[in-house]
Amino acid sequence: MTSPERRRPAAPDCHDPHVVQPHKQALLKRLNRIEGQVRGIAQMIQEDRYCVDVLTQVAAIQSALDAVALQLLEDHTRGCVADAVKADRGDQAIAELMTAVKRFAR
Amino acid sequence: MTSPERRRPAAPDCHDPHVVQPHKQALLKRLNRIEGQVRGIAQMIQEDRYCVDVLTQVAAIQSALDAVALQLLEDHTRGCVADAVKADRGDQAIAELMTAVKRFAR
Amino acid sequence: MTSPERRRPAAPDCHDPHVVQPHKQALLKRLNRIEGQVRGIAQMIQEDRYCVDVLTQVAAIQSALDAVALQLLEDHTRGCVADAVKADRGDQAIAELMTAVKRFAR
Amino acid sequence: MTSPERRRPAAPDCHDPHVVQPHKQALLKRLNRIEGQVRGIAQMIQEDRYCVDVLTQVAAIQSALDAVALQLLEDHTRGCVADAVKADRGDQAIAELMTAVKRFAR
Repeated sequence: MTSPERRRPAAPDCHDPHVVQPHKQALLKRLNRIEGQVRGIAQMIQEDRYCVDVLTQVAAIQSALDAVALQLLEDHTRGCVADAVKADRGDQAIAELMTAVKRFAR
Repeated sequence: MTSPERRRPAAPDCHDPHVVQPHKQALLKRLNRIEGQVRGIAQMIQEDRYCVDVLTQVAAIQSALDAVALQLLEDHTRGCVADAVKADRGDQAIAELMTAVKRFAR
Repeated sequence: MTSPERRRPAAPDCHDPHVVQPHKQALLKRLNRIEGQVRGIAQMIQEDRYCVDVLTQVAAIQSALDAVALQLLEDHTRGCVADAVKADRGDQAIAELMTAVKRFAR
Repeated sequence: MTSPERRRPAAPDCHDPHVVQPHKQALLKRLNRIEGQVRGIAQMIQEDRYCVDVLTQVAAIQSALDAVALQLLEDHTRGCVADAVKADRGDQAIAELMTAVKRFAR
């Protein structure tokens, strides 16, 4: 789990308490739906539903999470990374961005 | 959503009510943990936590879902697909397996 | 590199010299095209072509290789794995199949 | 195929003939190796080598191409995208970057 203490000091300008995640409500809505989908899969397994149908639902959640990740990546690039580049501190911000992209690359 | 009516008639031997998903308890436990992870991400977004930390948690859920999918694929292959192959009805079961594999392929 | 000595003794029935890869000509044709695509990317980099255009071509090769991998997986399942299952030696063949699937899973 | 005419006018500053792909020699070397690996797979299929061994080699090429793609993405972000951001033309450059990232996301 990520505790508040782990907030990176390296990009403090991204932690200004007045900066708000730009797509907060849309992301929360998506995550709420994903949570329901995960419960739905547990229910399918509880009922010994056909494996291939369960797999189809797992793939649907993966796609929904991919979309969340891409939205976060884009917001991060438009916000923190662009700000760092403008302030001539782009090197580290881009290195960190690439580490994040790598996690979602195939 | 997958309603009971959508249970495929094509593999009726996989729907015997006495057949139980072999790793049911382990899978339910994993899905319960994944559900908690999804809630954790919603909480992080609610608190405007650093995007890269949120992305790391999204990637962790993706990995956990990959593991669930691979377990389901393996159980399905050892169960339904192997049974179909032994009964000389392997062609359709393998075609369906490949469709499922394709969904998780990169 | 995979030397002839590395041919797995575990599935000797899959190494019968008379067994021919069922989609050999189609696969060789696809690989020949992929080889040309890789050369095309080298040419683009040589000419300092726009990165995003190069990336699009890299993604096209990845898709072409995915299709080759899925064809090989399917042929392997219909051939070696199904034969092993019928001969009651399915356990190891399916474990090996899952290892291969895992490599292409996201 | 991408013809010279398709070079995007949208990011002309990235097409300055004097700008040189920063990791050109390393990338060309990698692509040359990948081309050899593709030929190696064709040879394995020609010889009816064990499918699982062929699949392992296909996965190795995919990883090598992923590394090429990530290098290109990083160079592009540090170069064209950062330049566009500094010149207050970041919006379109980031949108295009995200499209490219999406192609490599799972």
